[in-house]
Amino acid sequence: MKSGVATIYGLHAVRALLSRRPERILTLKLMTGRDDARVRELAELAQRAGRPVERADAREFKHRLGDAVHQGVMAEIAPLPPWTEDDLLVALANAKHPLLLALDGVQDPHNLGACLRTADACGALAVIVPKDRAAQLTATVRKVAAGAAETTPVVAVTNLVRCLVLLKEADLWVVGAEAQATRRARDVDLTAGIVLVLGAEGAGLRQLTRQSCDFVVRLPQLGAVESLNVSVAAGMLLYEAVRQRDAGSS
Amino acid sequence: MKSGVATIYGLHAVRALLSRRPERILTLKLMTGRDDARVRELAELAQRAGRPVERADAREFKHRLGDAVHQGVMAEIAPLPPWTEDDLLVALANAKHPLLLALDGVQDPHNLGACLRTADACGALAVIVPKDRAAQLTATVRKVAAGAAETTPVVAVTNLVRCLVLLKEADLWVVGAEAQATRRARDVDLTAGIVLVLGAEGAGLRQLTRQSCDFVVRLPQLGAVESLNVSVAAGMLLYEAVRQRDAGSS
Repeated sequence: MKSGVATIYGLHAVRALLSRRPERILTLKLMTGRDDARVRELAELAQRAGRPVERADAREFKHRLGDAVHQGVMAEIAPLPPWTEDDLLVALANAKHPLLLALDGVQDPHNLGACLRTADACGALAVIVPKDRAAQLTATVRKVAAGAAETTPVVAVTNLVRCLVLLKEADLWVVGAEAQATRRARDVDLTAGIVLVLGAEGAGLRQLTRQSCDFVVRLPQLGAVESLNVSVAAGMLLYEAVRQRDAGSS
Repeated sequence: MKSGVATIYGLHAVRALLSRRPERILTLKLMTGRDDARVRELAELAQRAGRPVERADAREFKHRLGDAVHQGVMAEIAPLPPWTEDDLLVALANAKHPLLLALDGVQDPHNLGACLRTADACGALAVIVPKDRAAQLTATVRKVAAGAAETTPVVAVTNLVRCLVLLKEADLWVVGAEAQATRRARDVDLTAGIVLVLGAEGAGLRQLTRQSCDFVVRLPQLGAVESLNVSVAAGMLLYEAVRQRDAGSS
């Protein structure tokens, strides 16, 4: 993987990283002339964390980000290195009710990028993909992920089934999605630590992966089309997990 | 739009259309040698509806469908003509608690195709798009929709806001999605007749569209990325609507 500098943008994205992982911000760049309360808050956050703040003009924003909705805010950040299985296990030890997404052989970089973006929005700790016969973290994936590849780690594992076994030993429930399942996603408790497992486009879960699941659940399939797009299915499952976890709040 | 013949495939897709709209099936094609109970059921459905059944060999399936998961079943069908606003209003008059999806200026044909596929899976009656400055029903859209463009109608309207007003007069609730909304999707009753409205990639709902909404709701946004992909957001919202509607069943 190319090392170097990645860029994230937008008030929400930059504020999130500044609050949670300020050490990853190399430089905060604010658009020349922008000086409202929300931008000042970011500048203060950065200064408090000892991160450099610079001004950049509209031309530089245009050059770097094109037509993206950047709100006059971007940050150069250290790219997120891929995690090893060990990194994942260490992170799990410190996480309360972790939510993970595992993709069983998704080939299309657009689908992997979209899944990363959704996993980020739903607060997933990491996304697990097999090392072989599956899309990896390429430039296309990073672009489609719209910044999420810089904040949600990807764990490329040699053997997905073995990884799921390790996760079970770490007290996670393994929940697979399958069109033929009798339980609906909402019928299974997704509030404990879980890893949601989705199969490849078209083919679904491989048999060994399916056998590693504690539960398999189905998603809406009321229409004529045979299966949901894998990134949409991931979105629905992650949404259901967030919905259940959020049930107590108002 | 090119007239002619479209093809759908897979047991579920073909069975759904044979059951609901058999008149649209021009020819049912079963793979030579396949003769299990599920295939026989399709053949019987077709015969009862007076639709021709033919056999086709593996080579013809491969030639027509490539690597798609066709399960030895395909059907040539009359392509679905686009609906006018009048067609939509007629269909609404006959629908119980209709579920509609409206896309406020989605430009990317992949996103429109993915939305169609998800709308189909969630039982939406139709998908509404503006005629101008928005993706239309092209060959790319049909391909990404994986058959859903042949079963879920697209309504291209001259003026989306005016269409939403018509839908309100037809007793539908208009529910928009917006990252800044205070209500969560689950906090709004989505079991009555509704139209779910999603904004364009990045830009969100236009102001006039937003003002036409009875409610605006937000989707999970726990991470660093500024917004969800529009087809994933559509998937989450449609999922929530199906979940609420399905609450009584087991």
